Order: sequence, then structure tokens, then C-alpha cells
Amino acid sequence: MYRNKGRFWCKLLGVPRKIILDCDPGHDDAIAIMLALASEELEVLGITTVHGNVGLERTTRNALVVREVLGKSVPIYAGADRPLVRDRISAEAVHGVSGLEGPHLPTPTGQVEPQHAVHFIIEQVLRYPGEVTLVPVGPLTNIALAMRLEPRIIPQIREIVLMGGSIDIGNWTPSAEFNILCDPHAAKIVFGAGVPLVMMGLNLTHQTIAHPERVARFRALGTRVGNFVAELLEFFREHHVQRYKWDGAPIHDACAVAYLLRPGLFKTAMFNVEIEANEGLAFGRTVCDYWRVTGRQPNCEVGLEVDVDGFYNLLLERIARYA
Amino acid sequence: MYRNKGRFWCKLLGVPRKIILDCDPGHDDAIAIMLALASEELEVLGITTVHGNVGLERTTRNALVVREVLGKSVPIYAGADRPLVRDRISAEAVHGVSGLEGPHLPTPTGQVEPQHAVHFIIEQVLRYPGEVTLVPVGPLTNIALAMRLEPRIIPQIREIVLMGGSIDIGNWTPSAEFNILCDPHAAKIVFGAGVPLVMMGLNLTHQTIAHPERVARFRALGTRVGNFVAELLEFFREHHVQRYKWDGAPIHDACAVAYLLRPGLFKTAMFNVEIEANEGLAFGRTVCDYWRVTGRQPNCEVGLEVDVDGFYNLLLERIARYA
Amino acid sequence: MYRNKGRFWCKLLGVPRKIILDCDPGHDDAIAIMLALASEELEVLGITTVHGNVGLERTTRNALVVREVLGKSVPIYAGADRPLVRDRISAEAVHGVSGLEGPHLPTPTGQVEPQHAVHFIIEQVLRYPGEVTLVPVGPLTNIALAMRLEPRIIPQIREIVLMGGSIDIGNWTPSAEFNILCDPHAAKIVFGAGVPLVMMGLNLTHQTIAHPERVARFRALGTRVGNFVAELLEFFREHHVQRYKWDGAPIHDACAVAYLLRPGLFKTAMFNVEIEANEGLAFGRTVCDYWRVTGRQPNCEVGLEVDVDGFYNLLLERIARYA
Amino acid sequence: MYRNKGRFWCKLLGVPRKIILDCDPGHDDAIAIMLALASEELEVLGITTVHGNVGLERTTRNALVVREVLGKSVPIYAGADRPLVRDRISAEAVHGVSGLEGPHLPTPTGQVEPQHAVHFIIEQVLRYPGEVTLVPVGPLTNIALAMRLEPRIIPQIREIVLMGGSIDIGNWTPSAEFNILCDPHAAKIVFGAGVPLVMMGLNLTHQTIAHPERVARFRALGTRVGNFVAELLEFFREHHVQRYKWDGAPIHDACAVAYLLRPGLFKTAMFNVEIEANEGLAFGRTVCDYWRVTGRQPNCEVGLEVDVDGFYNLLLERIARYA
Ligand SMILES: [Ca+2]
Ligand SMILES: [Ca+2]
Ligand SMILES: [Ca+2]
Ligand SMILES: [Ca+2]
Repeated sequence: MYRNKGRFWCKLLGVPRKIILDCDPGHDDAIAIMLALASEELEVLGITTVHGNVGLERTTRNALVVREVLGKSVPIYAGADRPLVRDRISAEAVHGVSGLEGPHLPTPTGQVEPQHAVHFIIEQVLRYPGEVTLVPVGPLTNIALAMRLEPRIIPQIREIVLMGGSIDIGNWTPSAEFNILCDPHAAKIVFGAGVPLVMMGLNLTHQTIAHPERVARFRALGTRVGNFVAELLEFFREHHVQRYKWDGAPIHDACAVAYLLRPGLFKTAMFNVEIEANEGLAFGRTVCDYWRVTGRQPNCEVGLEVDVDGFYNLLLERIARYA
Repeated sequence: MYRNKGRFWCKLLGVPRKIILDCDPGHDDAIAIMLALASEELEVLGITTVHGNVGLERTTRNALVVREVLGKSVPIYAGADRPLVRDRISAEAVHGVSGLEGPHLPTPTGQVEPQHAVHFIIEQVLRYPGEVTLVPVGPLTNIALAMRLEPRIIPQIREIVLMGGSIDIGNWTPSAEFNILCDPHAAKIVFGAGVPLVMMGLNLTHQTIAHPERVARFRALGTRVGNFVAELLEFFREHHVQRYKWDGAPIHDACAVAYLLRPGLFKTAMFNVEIEANEGLAFGRTVCDYWRVTGRQPNCEVGLEVDVDGFYNLLLERIARYA
Repeated sequence: MYRNKGRFWCKLLGVPRKIILDCDPGHDDAIAIMLALASEELEVLGITTVHGNVGLERTTRNALVVREVLGKSVPIYAGADRPLVRDRISAEAVHGVSGLEGPHLPTPTGQVEPQHAVHFIIEQVLRYPGEVTLVPVGPLTNIALAMRLEPRIIPQIREIVLMGGSIDIGNWTPSAEFNILCDPHAAKIVFGAGVPLVMMGLNLTHQTIAHPERVARFRALGTRVGNFVAELLEFFREHHVQRYKWDGAPIHDACAVAYLLRPGLFKTAMFNVEIEANEGLAFGRTVCDYWRVTGRQPNCEVGLEVDVDGFYNLLLERIARYA
Repeated sequence: MYRNKGRFWCKLLGVPRKIILDCDPGHDDAIAIMLALASEELEVLGITTVHGNVGLERTTRNALVVREVLGKSVPIYAGADRPLVRDRISAEAVHGVSGLEGPHLPTPTGQVEPQHAVHFIIEQVLRYPGEVTLVPVGPLTNIALAMRLEPRIIPQIREIVLMGGSIDIGNWTPSAEFNILCDPHAAKIVFGAGVPLVMMGLNLTHQTIAHPERVARFRALGTRVGNFVAELLEFFREHHVQRYKWDGAPIHDACAVAYLLRPGLFKTAMFNVEIEANEGLAFGRTVCDYWRVTGRQPNCEVGLEVDVDGFYNLLLERIARYA
């Protein structure tokens, strides 16, 4: 595993941490974007988009929509419109046709950048060697393509903090979580790269259910963005009531950003995690050696528990910063 | 799935339930045998042995030893000495070289029956159509061979109540539990047979840790068999302290027998469970459709929770019946 | 690999070679039976039947039919009605609904033996240690079940001479030949058993096309059985004209028997052959290390070429012995 | 499958066909380069290099060396240094440590272009929509990366004519040919792209053995390049004598270029070819539906036979054009 010297200096000096948020909005992606852009601890170099919850055209438009709602100026780069090897899957059943059903969505006035997301990732990592943290909260296609197109970035990535996978049960198949299942081969590339890696999987994110009383707190902010979040969560809730009998939806993707802001909210441990990229019943599984029975080297810091109240307090505090 | 009329009559009339206990003793197998043979609710037609924790010669000898310790007269039949397709694995690291390390083991005076376990299973199921419950607490090789050698038994098996698998994390690989991993192809045959099936997997059996205070209760019985159990559990504990940081060993196999005696101690639900019998990271996994995302028909009643105190009370009460 | 002393004595003394012909008739199976039963070099201990070209009930009936046509008295034993692990496939498209379409089929007067084929195989191999050659020309389910039910037969089997597999292209998938594909797990057991093994695969059997002029030679015998063969081959031709654009069908299964009678007709070589028993594009492939690139030990004598005229002369000569 | 209008106009007007030769020199790659650069029918837009026979640094240097030997000015672009997903393999055992052992190799005076091969491929295909033929004679990593980084190129590629795969036996495993095995996932992307595809696999290229008398013809040209070819073939011969017992090496990669120059020398047919990208015994196999048993649509024109004398005459004539 690579060691990056930049890492420690930045922390010491209180310099905001440079991140690229790679996403497929998506309700929880939208909240992850809000959390990142509201936080002075992070310098969001750019938002990159990828196929996933819905097609690339829509995830990119949704990123523009969220930026519009927030009134922020971060650049947005569109990336891969399909997985590396497997056929594309998507999650309209969960996120609605647009990928962001629920609130009224304004027509974005801004534009997507002309540069490809993969080129943007490569450029930024090489520009700030050892300083850039990648935060993928969708399929890992962009990150994997960047690693293969320009392998010199691999030792220069400070860290990858991702939402994806599960150490127990999947959500899209019994074995696999949606983000990883969307592109298991990309995941195999990323998990095998030797980059410091933090995984926030379903086993953790399923602890962050947005119960109605939590949703009410966002609405109680009395702000436009607070209402927007509440409406996102109310739509997102429906699927989870039906599928899981839960009284709300987990805010998966925000966990990865929250970990960067308040690692102390999370209990994690290092494990070996391998990706099953062969087709079959476990296609797309993040095979986590929880009991350390394989003798394989730990390669991933895995989120195990989150202080859910702390998580929601952080989220509320930051969302409250928007008008 | 087959319906067996015998099933309901027996219950109604309080006739003891006919079972064949198929095992690979093994510490927890030994306790499962004790529990079964002490219980008037069960008529143990025979004990059949199979390769598994240790080689067939030793699991068979261990069955004889346990019968000797208990002073019971149930017939014992040796079965398959190797898995159907894959190479044999074993668990001397957990159960010791003999497979039953810990207590002093008497030299058995009795003999194994000349009939092959597979023939015994076939014979009994055809003799008592719809009445025989199979209780496999080792690799499923014998049951699978019986089903393929004489497919007419399949609709005549009352139920299969097995220890094996897991709905979350495995113990022999990150994906697989030992019994199923020993012979995934046999498991695929059994789980695909359409027979009423109850699975007590690690997700449940790991709830039954024999803490020192629980072990002390067996010792406090002041009986020879109580001491024997305590010594089994003390040896069995070592591996689990080291591997899992638990203060004792789970008594996996006894869960299957306890379920037959007191189903009310167990919370279960019907799921689709498929076996991954293709080699790879998930080889031997019991892929359980916990969130019902596959559309595949439920084929297995899966143990989810056990009333652990109730379980130990039952075990104590029954072990206390031995001298 | 096991060495059998019986092997060499028998040859020396001109004692007929004891064989069990395990088959799924099937047109070419029927001709293999005729060839075997007409040959004084072979002592056919019994014919065992297995699911395959058509269901077990029909393959067994067809064996009875062929015995009836030939007026012979060899015992027939029914075996496995389904593969070990995978779902059953069959080949009515090639062999017709009955499995033996073409000639008029008499109603057999004889009966199948009550003993199961697997038990018969075990019994005979143990009765004549080192002397019995198994000749499977259908799916390998019976042989595999016998090996697992009674592993002591493994070192006592003189040799297995089978029809199945291919070193190049399959016939039921691009990768797999029908017999092996019917039960790849059984094939993996048999090819991994360490028994002397001869494989007559499609790469060889496709050399034995029964062109119309060859069929005419059978008809020209002017016998009932000669006509029966001709009618079998005429029906069997249809599928092969359509699928392969050949002017006749290969007589696959007779190659295995012919090899026992006249090994000099065949060019063979030792290779490592492994069975792909994992599902996927190569499921059921006999992976033959033709260029010796794997470093794996040769375990199979693979038929490469046959003197086709010699083969047909032998066949004609033997078929001519029947009325 | 996409239809490209450019295709037919070019042919009609005798405009040289625009190609990009994507290679991993490699002895036979070197000869493929020579053949392409000597031929007025082809406009070689550039040579792109990829990991394969040896590492990228060496394959790139070897491309520079060959250009130096030929005194040509085609631009050379370095591409991927590793496969998409699997670990890198290489073939020093066949091509020597440098990848081009045998002749004296001059120090190249020219430089590799700064642009990445993948970007060059994308740029050229988009610049000449429907006109560019890709000729990959190494692992398919560059082509696959280009397709995923810029999917708009896919319908604009005129054709892909590749050396790789086999319809029968592999050379690096029993199932797989080296180029495809180097990056099966890239191959799956390319074979699944819907682009017109021609595959020259081992089943064809193994017909082009450079027997000593053929090598002698190159030497007899009395030219520097003729000698260079002869020395390449003499070194390349060694491995093939040992492994295959052939009296020379096949000139695999030149077949793809020769097909573009004289398609009439080749017998081909359309088949469905799928890539096995799951690990196992058939990893990297080009599964060709030769007997059309799958019902899958043909997606590849597969080379079956080559007029070997015509092939060598063409090669001689073109090599003779160099000093
Ligand atoms: Ca997402
Ligand atoms: Ca057990
Ligand atoms: Ca047959
Ligand atoms: Ca090459």
C-alpha cells in the first residue's frame, strides 16, 4: 500500500482536504454533494458523474440540478456512460425515472465542463500528488478507467473513501450491493490497486435510516434546501418501506463524506476485501475476510458502525448553512 | 415442495419423531447426539457418519465413543469418506487430531453396522414414507448420494433440518461455512431437492456461545456425561477464543436437534437459499435472498434467532438425564 | 494411477476381457452394444443404462429392445435417472422421441434386472478385482456414483474406455460434447479418479461418418440385424446432414468398443484432461492439454485418429455374425 | 453491427485503407509492421504499443527499433502497460528477454509520440469516421480502453482485424491463446462491441509455419531487412521446435495484415464468438459457435484457412521492397 506524505501535513496545517466527489445522483448522492459543498474541511476540486442509478445523461443533469439548488460553483465533469465489461444496470425503481424524483427540480443554468471526468481525475491527482482523496459514491468505472489509462496516478492518490459493497447481505442481489454490482470489474481494479481504501458498505449505511422524525428536522430548518432534502428523503423512503419494511431510507452516500468530516463517528477495522468479478451467484460481492481466515493481507478499512445521531446532527448542521 | 401427510398425524398423536442423525463428530456433533438420544420426542433410527471435521474412520469411531459414553444402543452406520466432486477438507485445527479432543475417550466396545449409511437412509425413508426427518450436522454427502442413488426417497423425506451455511459471514472462507464448503455439490443437490428444509446457519449458531458460566452448569451436574460435555466445551473453546475473541464455542450442531424439540425457541423465516457450487470466492456459500430481491421461490426455513437461555436450559435438562 | 496386475495376465492367456457397457441408447449406443455382444474378445458382464439421449425409462427400454433384436441374453441394469448436480438435458432432437427412431422396434420380452446399475458395477469390480473394464458411452453418472458410494472399487477398475468429450470443438455447446455436458460433475469425478482412462471424443468419432455407401454395406448383409443397423443409420443421418452438412452420422459410441477389439486401428496419446465443472461458456468441456503447456500430469489416453475403413470392416464383420 | 459508408467508397476509389496497427513486438509483430509499412494499399496512421509479449517499455522500444531498421517515419504511440482487470502475463520464454531476440537490434534514433495510444486511437477514429481499421495483434487493452473512454468511436470504427484466439486449441493454456489470455476482459469488450470483426486465430496462423526453406527465401533477398527477418524467424523457431515439434514458427501477426492486403488468400466464415472472461479452465477462450448450436448471432468473421504459399509470396514480395 502506498504512503502519501501530503496526507499528514495537510491535516496538521488545517488545510482543507482536496476531494473529487464521483457520483451518480441519485437521492443520497445529492445529499452527499450538499454535505461536501457545505463543509470548509473539504475542498471539492470537482464533481464527476458516472452511469449508475440512472443513465449518465441524467446523473450529470442531476448533478447540475443539485449545484443549481445549492447556488454553488463547483465544476462538474461527465464520465463513463457504461460499465467496463458487464452490461449496464440501473435503479429507476428506487430513484424514479429522473433519478431524483420527489422535489421540484429547477432547470440548471450552468453547464457541464467539456473535459472528461477520467481526464479530470488524472489531471488533478498528478497536479496535487499525494493530496487528492477520491470519494466515489457510485459505480467505480471512472476511477478504474483513470487507473488504467494513467497508472502513475495510483501511488499519488491520497485515499479512496467509497460508498459501496457490504460485509454481509447485498441489496441488488443477495450477494451484491448496487454500486459494486454495476461494475464489478472496475471494483476489482480499485480494490486491487494498493491505494488506501475506506469502504462504507450496506452493513454500515443501513444504520442511517431517515425516520420521519429525522426528515422532519430537515423540514424544520425552514430553508429551501432543508425542504429539498426532506422531499428527497420522503420519495426515497417509499422503496425502503416496501422492500425492507423500514420507516425510511438510509442515506448511503453521505456516509462516505461524513467519514471525511468526522471519522470519530465511525467504528472501522482493516480487512482483506476481494471483489468477485466472475459471473455467478456472488457476482459483484465485496468478499470481506471478517474472521481473518484467508491469510490475505488487509487492504481496506471497513466501516462497521456509525453514531447515527452524530451523523444526523452533522448533516443537519451543514444543510442548515444553505439558504 | 413435497407435502407429507405423515407429518401431521405424528404430531397429533404425540408419536416420537423418527430421525436419522447424520454427523461428523466433532465436539458439537457429540452434544447433538447426546441431546437427540436423551429426548423422548425423537426416535433416533440410526446415526450415520460422514467425512468432515476429521476423516470418516475417526468420525465413525467418535460416534461409537459417544454412544459408549452415553450407554445407549442406537445403531451407527458409516457413510461417505469424501465429498462428491471437490477435494476433501477437514478441521483438525478446530477439533484436534482425533476430532474429539478434550475429555478422556473410552475405547468403544460396540461395532459399526455393516450397512452403508446411504443404504440405511434409503431403506428407512422408504420403510416409513413421509415420516423420517433427516438431521445432517456435517457435510451433506450422504444425503445427496442417497437422493441420487434412489430418487424415490425425495418426496418421502418428511423434512431435513440441518446445521450448515450462513446468511451473512462464513467461518471457513469469508463466504462459506465449513459443512457446506466440505461438499458444496452435495449441498446444491439437497437445497435443490424440493424437500421441506430448515437451515441452522452460523448467523444463528454463533448466538449459542458456551461461556465459562454455561460450561460450569454442565460440570455442576456432577455426572460423568456432564463432565464429558464440560471437557468437550473447554477444548472447543480454545479455537474460538483465538479466532473470534469469544469467551467460548458455539454449539452449532445441537441447534438442529433443539429445533426439533422446541421450535418455539427459534425465530425462523422462509427464504430462497441457493448454493454456489462453482469455484471462486463464494464457493460453498448459502446465498440467501434475505431481502427478496431475486424473485426466486423460498425453499428453506432459515433460523434467524434463538432464545439462548432457553436453548441451554433444554440442553442442561436433557444432559442431566444421563448418569 | 493404479496398476492392475490382472490386466496383463488376461491378455496373455487370451481370456475374454470383462466389460460393463454403460449406455444411453441411442442409435450409436445400439451399434456399440451389437459390436460388443458379437465379439468373443469381450465378456460383457452386463449392460447398464443411464439417463442421456432420452430419459432412463426409454434408454433402458431401448437396451431391452436391442437385446431382443440381437437374440442375446446379457443382463441389463437400470441406473441413474438424472445427473448428479445439474439439471437433466436430453437429445430427442437427434435420436427421436423414443431415442431409437428409424427401424421398427419389437416389444422386448425380457426384463431389466432388479439390481441397480451402480450396485452391479460395484459388485462386479469387487468380484473381479483388476479385471473389469468399464465402457461408458453415455453420461458418466453411474460410474461416478459407484466411485463415491464404494471408493474401494477405484483401484480395482482395470480401465475405463469411454466415448465423450472433445479436444477441439463440442457438439452441444461450442465447448462441450453431449455425454460430458449431461453430467460434468460426474465426468470430473471419473477423470480425477486416477483410473487408466481412454477417451474417444468428437475429434475422433467425427471421423467415422456413415456415408450412404457404408450404410449400403450393412443393408447388403441381407440380415435382419444388418437392416436394423442400416435403418438406425439412415434416421441418425438426418440430424447430421442438417447440422454439420455431412453425408451421414458418426457412430460415436462404437469407437469405444472398437478400441477394445482393435487398438491398432486407433492413434492415441497421453494428455492431461481436466473437466470444467463450473458453469459458464465452457461448462462440460474436456480441457485437454494438447501442447503440454500446463505442467499437469497426463491422466488420459486420448483417441486422435482412427483407421475408418478398418473400423467399418470390423463393424461389418461383427454385425454379419447376427442373423 | 454497425455499417460504415466510408468503407465502400474507399475501396471503390483505390484510396489506401487507413489502419492503426496495435502491437506488442514481438517477432511476428515486427514482421506484421514490415508488411504493413511496405504496402501502398494501407495508410498506417500510426503504430500503437501495448503490454504483451514483454512489458510496455520493451514493446515500445521494439516498435522504435523496427521503424529504425525499416527507415520509415510512421508515428509510434505507447499505450496500456497492464491488462484491465487480471494480472499481467508475458512471453519472454518465446520472444526472449528483449522481446525481439535474434538479430542485432540498432539503438533507435527516433522517439515515441507524447500522446497516449488510447487518445490517438480515439482521435483518429473521430477524425475519419467510418474509415479507420484497427489491426490489433497483441492484447486488446488499448482498443477496449478507447471504446470505454469514448464510446462514440464504436460505430465509427470501419473494422477490427485482429490476431488472437483460436477456434480449437490454445497455446498459453489448453483453452486460450496468448493475446486474448493477456486481457480477456478487454477481449470481451471488443468482441461485444458490435464492430465488424475479423479474427485470425491459432487455428489459422498455425498453418503459416516458417520452415527453414521459407526462411532461406528471406535470406536470399540479400537485403538488410531480408536478413533481419530471417534472423527473427530463426530465433522464433526454437520455441516452436521444442513445444510443438514444428520445423519453424508461425508468423501469427502478419496474417491480420495479409488479410487486409489479399483477403482472397483466406477462407473465412461468420460465427458467434464469445469470450470467457470468468476465471477457470477456459479463462481467455474465444468460444466459437462453429456448429451453430447456440442460436447466438454471428459477430465475427473467423479465418479458417490460408493459402500459405500465397501468404509467403506476398510477404517475400513486400519485404523485398526494403533495402
Ligand atoms: Ca450513488
Ligand atoms: Ca458437525
Ligand atoms: Ca451414448
Ligand atoms: Ca503480437
